[in-house]
Amino acid sequence: MAVRVGVLGATGAVGQRLIQLLEPHPEFEIAALTASESSAGKTYEQAAKWRVNSPIPDDIAEMTVTATEPDAVPDDVDLLFSSLPSSVGAEVEPPFCEDGYVVSSNSSNSRMADDVPLIIPEVNADHLDLLEVQRDERGWDGALVKNPNCSTITFVPTLAALAEFGLETVHVATLQAVSGAGYDGVTSMEIIDNAIPYIGSEEDKLETESRKLLGEFDGASLSQDGVEVAASCNRIPTIDGHLENVWVETEEELTVEDAKTAMTEYPSIDLRSSPDQFIHVFDDPDRPQPRMDRTIGDGMAIAAGGLRESTFGLQYNCLAHNTIRGAAGASVLNGELLLENGYL
Amino acid sequence: MAVRVGVLGATGAVGQRLIQLLEPHPEFEIAALTASESSAGKTYEQAAKWRVNSPIPDDIAEMTVTATEPDAVPDDVDLLFSSLPSSVGAEVEPPFCEDGYVVSSNSSNSRMADDVPLIIPEVNADHLDLLEVQRDERGWDGALVKNPNCSTITFVPTLAALAEFGLETVHVATLQAVSGAGYDGVTSMEIIDNAIPYIGSEEDKLETESRKLLGEFDGASLSQDGVEVAASCNRIPTIDGHLENVWVETEEELTVEDAKTAMTEYPSIDLRSSPDQFIHVFDDPDRPQPRMDRTIGDGMAIAAGGLRESTFGLQYNCLAHNTIRGAAGASVLNGELLLENGYL
Amino acid sequence: MAVRVGVLGATGAVGQRLIQLLEPHPEFEIAALTASESSAGKTYEQAAKWRVNSPIPDDIAEMTVTATEPDAVPDDVDLLFSSLPSSVGAEVEPPFCEDGYVVSSNSSNSRMADDVPLIIPEVNADHLDLLEVQRDERGWDGALVKNPNCSTITFVPTLAALAEFGLETVHVATLQAVSGAGYDGVTSMEIIDNAIPYIGSEEDKLETESRKLLGEFDGASLSQDGVEVAASCNRIPTIDGHLENVWVETEEELTVEDAKTAMTEYPSIDLRSSPDQFIHVFDDPDRPQPRMDRTIGDGMAIAAGGLRESTFGLQYNCLAHNTIRGAAGASVLNGELLLENGYL
Amino acid sequence: MAVRVGVLGATGAVGQRLIQLLEPHPEFEIAALTASESSAGKTYEQAAKWRVNSPIPDDIAEMTVTATEPDAVPDDVDLLFSSLPSSVGAEVEPPFCEDGYVVSSNSSNSRMADDVPLIIPEVNADHLDLLEVQRDERGWDGALVKNPNCSTITFVPTLAALAEFGLETVHVATLQAVSGAGYDGVTSMEIIDNAIPYIGSEEDKLETESRKLLGEFDGASLSQDGVEVAASCNRIPTIDGHLENVWVETEEELTVEDAKTAMTEYPSIDLRSSPDQFIHVFDDPDRPQPRMDRTIGDGMAIAAGGLRESTFGLQYNCLAHNTIRGAAGASVLNGELLLENGYL
Repeated sequence: MAVRVGVLGATGAVGQRLIQLLEPHPEFEIAALTASESSAGKTYEQAAKWRVNSPIPDDIAEMTVTATEPDAVPDDVDLLFSSLPSSVGAEVEPPFCEDGYVVSSNSSNSRMADDVPLIIPEVNADHLDLLEVQRDERGWDGALVKNPNCSTITFVPTLAALAEFGLETVHVATLQAVSGAGYDGVTSMEIIDNAIPYIGSEEDKLETESRKLLGEFDGASLSQDGVEVAASCNRIPTIDGHLENVWVETEEELTVEDAKTAMTEYPSIDLRSSPDQFIHVFDDPDRPQPRMDRTIGDGMAIAAGGLRESTFGLQYNCLAHNTIRGAAGASVLNGELLLENGYL
Repeated sequence: MAVRVGVLGATGAVGQRLIQLLEPHPEFEIAALTASESSAGKTYEQAAKWRVNSPIPDDIAEMTVTATEPDAVPDDVDLLFSSLPSSVGAEVEPPFCEDGYVVSSNSSNSRMADDVPLIIPEVNADHLDLLEVQRDERGWDGALVKNPNCSTITFVPTLAALAEFGLETVHVATLQAVSGAGYDGVTSMEIIDNAIPYIGSEEDKLETESRKLLGEFDGASLSQDGVEVAASCNRIPTIDGHLENVWVETEEELTVEDAKTAMTEYPSIDLRSSPDQFIHVFDDPDRPQPRMDRTIGDGMAIAAGGLRESTFGLQYNCLAHNTIRGAAGASVLNGELLLENGYL
Repeated sequence: MAVRVGVLGATGAVGQRLIQLLEPHPEFEIAALTASESSAGKTYEQAAKWRVNSPIPDDIAEMTVTATEPDAVPDDVDLLFSSLPSSVGAEVEPPFCEDGYVVSSNSSNSRMADDVPLIIPEVNADHLDLLEVQRDERGWDGALVKNPNCSTITFVPTLAALAEFGLETVHVATLQAVSGAGYDGVTSMEIIDNAIPYIGSEEDKLETESRKLLGEFDGASLSQDGVEVAASCNRIPTIDGHLENVWVETEEELTVEDAKTAMTEYPSIDLRSSPDQFIHVFDDPDRPQPRMDRTIGDGMAIAAGGLRESTFGLQYNCLAHNTIRGAAGASVLNGELLLENGYL
Repeated sequence: MAVRVGVLGATGAVGQRLIQLLEPHPEFEIAALTASESSAGKTYEQAAKWRVNSPIPDDIAEMTVTATEPDAVPDDVDLLFSSLPSSVGAEVEPPFCEDGYVVSSNSSNSRMADDVPLIIPEVNADHLDLLEVQRDERGWDGALVKNPNCSTITFVPTLAALAEFGLETVHVATLQAVSGAGYDGVTSMEIIDNAIPYIGSEEDKLETESRKLLGEFDGASLSQDGVEVAASCNRIPTIDGHLENVWVETEEELTVEDAKTAMTEYPSIDLRSSPDQFIHVFDDPDRPQPRMDRTIGDGMAIAAGGLRESTFGLQYNCLAHNTIRGAAGASVLNGELLLENGYL
C-alpha cells in the first residue's frame, strides 16, 4: 500500500517536478499540496502556472491547495517533500517535524546543522542514522532529512568515487542552467547572449556541503571530510543541466584510467529512483553536454567525461539534471531511502 | 602619411573585423585583401559574406581580392595583418616575411617559436626586440609578430598585474563565445540550450602562451615564466566576449584590495588602439558579463570583477571581447607597436 | 513478422530520428543503412555523428553503412525510408523504385509530381491509390510515396479540419526551428539573438503542397484544392518545433467555437504512430509553444491554440515537432499506411 | 540654451534608454528623474539597476530621484518624457499637463483618445496641431503627445510609404524581442528554446494605432484611415529589434519595384534624431535581421526587405529597434518636434 505524501511548496518549479515524479510513483500517493496563503483554497490548476512539459495529471489538477502549516495537512499523510524558499523552510519545517511528519527537504535551510542528515543515497546512506541523534536532541516524533544543493549533487558523486585515492584539493567551476533559480529567478534580458559569473551563496554551498556529504558518521556524530574545495559559479543560457569543470588533487597517484574505473564502478543503490549506472563516463572529450546528456538515467544519473591529466592532478567535467537529480528527484530518492529504512 | 597595409584572409570572421577596425584607422590604409584561390579576382563584396553589423565600407566593397601569396600583393604595402587557418598561416607567412613584408598575425602557427615575439603591447612590448634575433636567424627582411589566442589575451593582463606578488599556480575555466570559432565553427544545433566543455587545443594555448607572454627577454633569448597554469575550456551560447573564472596562488600574500589596486593601476600603453584604462575592475560581484561589458574601451579593455578570497589564494573573473581585443584589435595594436618602434 | 526496412541517408539529422523511431518499432526491422560514398564500409557509429539525445542502439552502432544504390541494399529489404538532399533523392529514388523497392520519402524532390502521392495519413490516406497510376505510368514494381515539408505538415491538418466551411484564403507566417535545416544548416552566429526572415523555397512548399494535400483523387487523377495560400517563413532560435500563425477566410461563417470543435473532433487514423488525439486545441491563449508542446502525442500530434476572431475571418496558431511529425515520424507513418494497405 | 527636461519612470527599461539618448542631447538637459514612491529620495544610481551597455553618466548617477507627481518636479522643467506602466500613466500624466508641463509619452494610455496626437514625426507631424483642440477641450496649459507602440512603429512607416497606392488590407505577423516587455517582463524559462504566440493587447494596438497614424487631420478632428489590419504577435528569444512579416493589398497595382522606390524615397524629417535615410530597403532576401540590422541609423531607421509578389498583393519584412525607434527614441523625437513647433 502506498505511503500518503504531501508536497510543501507545490506550485514552484521544484514542486511541479516533484508532482511529475510522485504522481506515477508506485510507493507514494499524493495526498496534500501546500503553497502560500494566497493559493490556499484554490484547485492546484488554478494556483499553479504549470510549466513542466507533460500535462498536469487530472487528479492533481483538481486537488485543493492548502496553506503550508501542520493543521492544514491530513494526519494520515506520513511523508512531506519540501521545496520552499529557505526562509520559509526554516520557519515551517520544524513544526511539521514536531507534529510527527517526516520531511524530505530540498530547501537549503538547516542543511549544515549538526543533527540533520544531508544525503545522497548512493554516496552516504549511512548518515541517515543521524536521525536518531536528531530525535533525541529535538524531541521530534517526525524527522528532517535534506538533500544537497543541485550544484553540489553534480560533482560530489565523482569525488566520492575518487575518495579512495585521498582527496586533497578540488577546484570546481560551474555552468548552471536557469531552471536552478526557479521560474522567475533569471530574466531573459539577463541571460540571452550572456553569462553571469555570480550566484548568491552558491559557492559556499559547494564548498561546505561537499565536506559534510563526504564526512564520516560514527553513530554519534558526523565529522567533516578534510578535502578543501574552491568553487566558482556561473549562470549560462541553458534550461536544464548543470555542467561542472573539476580539478582534483589526491594523495595517491591517480591516473585517467584509474579515475574512469573508479567512477564507472562506483555502485548505485537499490532504490526505485536510483539509476542502474550511477556515474556514466563518456570517452568522447566533448561530452557530457547539458542538452544532450541531462536525461541520462531518466535524469537521475551523473554524467562525467573529459577525464585528462592536468597541470595539477586530474581534470574532468560532470553534469546532472539540476531539477531532477539535483532537486525533486533527490528528495524523492531520500523519501525512498526513508521508507526502505523503516522511518515511515 | 598612412602606412599601406594588407589583410591576409580578409573574408573570414576576424578578417572582417580587421577591415572594420582598419578602414577608419588614420595610420593605416587598406591596400590589399587576400583570400583563398576561389575568391581571387572577385570584388570583396562578392567574395565575402559580410556579417559585421556595420555596412561594408564602399571602397572596400569594390576592391579586388587576390590570392594569398607575395606576388599578388603590391610592393608598396608594408604591413600585413594575417588571420588565416593555422595550417595556411604556417605555409604562407614565411614567404611573405622573406619577401620583406612585416606580418602582424593572429594565426596560431609559430606562436610558441623561440624567435617569434608573442605580444600584448601593454604587457610585454619589450619582447618586440626579439625580431632582431628573428631576422638574424631567418635572414628575413620582413618580420613576423604574433598576438596570443583570444582566451589567453583575456586573462594574461590580470596575471601581469599580479606578477609582483609572485605567481605560482593558476586555474582558469573559460566560458567562450561562438564567434571565437569563426562564422561556421559552431552550429546552432550544437549550442542552443547547451554548452560544450571542449575546444580543441585551446587549453594548451592558455597554459603555454601565458608563460611565454609573462617571460623575460634578456636581449638575446626569451625565458618562460615559471607560473603553472591549468585551463578548462567551454563554449557557451554567447555571440561575443570570453568570460573566465580564475584562481591564482602567489608567493606573497595577496589581498582582494591589493589585487584590485594592482589591476586598476596596471598601465596602458600610448598607442591609438589601447584603451585609457587597460583593466577595468568592477565592484559589483556579478560583473563583468559578456553582453553587458564586452565593448568596454571600444572592445579593447579587459574587464575584471568578483575579486574574492578563495579557499586557495585569490579568485576573480575576467572578460574581453574575443574578436576585437582577442583577435583583430590585438593584431592592429601590434601593428601600431611595430610602427611606433620603427619596424615599418 | 517485421518488415525489413532500410534508411537512405541514415547519418543525417532526419536519418538519425528515423533510426530512433524505427529501432523499437514492432512492425519494422532495420536491415540497411545507406549514406554517401565516403561513409560506405564504415560502421554506423563511425559514419554518423550521433546527436539524438538517446544513445545509439547497440545493434545499429555496429551495422555497416553502404552506398545509396540499389545493388548495395539486400533484396529482402522491402521498404526504404528516404531522407536525402533533394538533388540526391531525385537521382537515386527512381532506380530503387524500378528495382522493386517501396520508398517512403521525406526528400522534397517529386513531391508535386502528378503521379506521386503526397500523404498525411490522417488527412488524405485515400491519395495512396495514386500508386496504381504511378506504377502504370512508370512501369515500376516498387513505389514512391512522399510526405510533405515539415512546415506544411504543421498547418495543413488544421485546414483539413476546417475544410467543411469552404476554405478560401490562408495567410501563414512560420517561426521555424533550426533542426529543420539539418545539423549544419544554421550556424550559431546566424541565429543567436536573431531571426532570419527567409528560408529558401520554403514559402512555395507551403503554398503548393497544401493544395495538393487538400485536393481530391477521383481514382484516376488528383485535382488541386482551390484554397489560396500565402506564406512567410522565418527561422528563429529554437531547437525543435515549428510554430505557425494562421489566418483563414472561409465561404461559410466560421466561429471560434465551430473551429475548436472541428479541430478537436477531426479524426486520427488507426496506425501505430498516429496519436489518439490528432489535433490538440489549447484554451490558454499563449499556447502552443515550441519547447512546452512539441512532444504532445510523442511528437506526432498537431497542437493548436489562440483561436480568435480576426479582422479577416479566423486567426489561430499551430505547432508540430518538425523532425518527428514533420519529417521522420511522417515517413514512418506513411510506411505504416503502405503496410496496412498491402503495398509491402 | 537647452530645454530642461524630466524623465517620468526613469528607472525602467525605457527610462534608462531615455537617459542614454537625452544625456548627450544638445537641445535637452536632464533636470528631473522620477520613479515610484519607494525610489524617491535615493540617488539614481541607488534607485536604478542600470542595464544599458554604456555606463551611467556620472552626473545622472548622482541625481536625486523624486516621486512621480507635479509638486516634486522643478517648475523650470518644460518637457517631460514619460514611460510609465499605462495604469500609472493614466493617473499621473493629466495632472502634469494641467500643471503646464508638456509631456511626450511612450505609455500606452490615452493613445487612442480623440484629442491626443499619436505621432511618428516622419509620418504624421501635421497631427501635432491636434494639441490646439486638446488644450481647448481640457483647459490645459501643458500638452500630451503620444508615440505609438513599438510594434506599430515598425510597420506603419512602410504602410505610409505605400499609401499612395490605396491601402486596403494588411496582415502582419510580429517576431518581437524580449526587451519590449521590460527588464522583468519575460523570464528566461519562458523564452529560451521557445517562442510565445501571444502578447497581451498587442494585436489590438497594431490594428488600431495604425489607422489613427495614417488618418487625416482637417484642423478640427482626426479621421481614421480605412485600411483594415489583422495582426498576430509573437515573442521570440532576441534581445532587441522587432521583426515583422507584412502582406499588403492595395487598390492600385503595386509592383515590387514600385514598393521599393516608394519606401526608399519616403522622406525623413529635419529633426536631430531622425535618420537621413528613414526607410532602408535591403535587396538581400534574408535581411533585415534583428541582431544585424537593429542599429541602422543609430537605431532610428526602419529596415525593410524581402519585397516580393504574394499570392495576395505584396509581401515584405520590416524591422525597427524596439527600445530606441520603438520607444525612447520615438519619445525624444516627438520632443524635438514639439520644440521645433514652438510648444516649448
